[in-house]
Amino acid sequence: MLVREMDRQECNEFIARLAFGRLACSRENQPYIVPTYFAAEPDRIYGFATLGQKIEWMRSNPLVCIEADEVKTQNDWASVVVSGRFEEFPDTPEYAEQRRRAQAFLEKRGAWWQTAFGAAQTRSQFDRDIPVVYCIQIHKITGRKASRDPKS
Amino acid sequence: MLVREMDRQECNEFIARLAFGRLACSRENQPYIVPTYFAAEPDRIYGFATLGQKIEWMRSNPLVCIEADEVKTQNDWASVVVSGRFEEFPDTPEYAEQRRRAQAFLEKRGAWWQTAFGAAQTRSQFDRDIPVVYCIQIHKITGRKASRDPKS
Repeated sequence: MLVREMDRQECNEFIARLAFGRLACSRENQPYIVPTYFAAEPDRIYGFATLGQKIEWMRSNPLVCIEADEVKTQNDWASVVVSGRFEEFPDTPEYAEQRRRAQAFLEKRGAWWQTAFGAAQTRSQFDRDIPVVYCIQIHKITGRKASRDPKS
Repeated sequence: MLVREMDRQECNEFIARLAFGRLACSRENQPYIVPTYFAAEPDRIYGFATLGQKIEWMRSNPLVCIEADEVKTQNDWASVVVSGRFEEFPDTPEYAEQRRRAQAFLEKRGAWWQTAFGAAQTRSQFDRDIPVVYCIQIHKITGRKASRDPKS
């Protein structure tokens, strides 16, 4: 197997296409991972969730990591890792334009509200919870792609 | 969609069966995720890697998270999250028995060495690097399973 680095554009296209991955946040150096749907622009990633451990931890420490991968076989896979900073878009007039833009991107990938519902235990809890719209400002994005070694 | 908690035994069986997931480590509260193969016992998870960012970070902060999921559709998925502590099994006589046990578990899932090779950029780098065998002592394991809401 040979592994090569993906360039920035490849990484951006990869996460925009997958629109699904895992987000890690950290509190007192204990990391925590959750699978998450998202929508990606070249410099930021939009997400949506109901209140829970993930949102609470990102509010207390905004440094996060998002990873997306596609594993076809053990010799044919790609993985992109993003380091970034959580920023919440509260439902207030000053964030109205940013929320609108984030929601437009999230809606493009369809059924986006189901993601947030996944975090709620019951329908009544979902109705009661206030949805949180956020973005991750990308500080660093890297990717690696593996292919079969023709010499093997 | 309805979401329910998985019990401890379900969680253990799930990660043992998947033997693949994502590992997050953290340094100065910046989390970092990598996809990883592993082998799971009820109270610990074995892994194997060549030297790199993941091993360096786990050595400096042993608190880690492993997440494994199976997403069939947006309404039919399961996800298990493990919080634990990294422990390295150096290639020394006092760790010989622990390394042997870890390697036996890792070999059971087949082609386990390919995982470590995935971390190396070239074959010569792999040959040069010293493989690191480690285990994650499980402190907490939780899981959630979603199914379609019959009322929807």
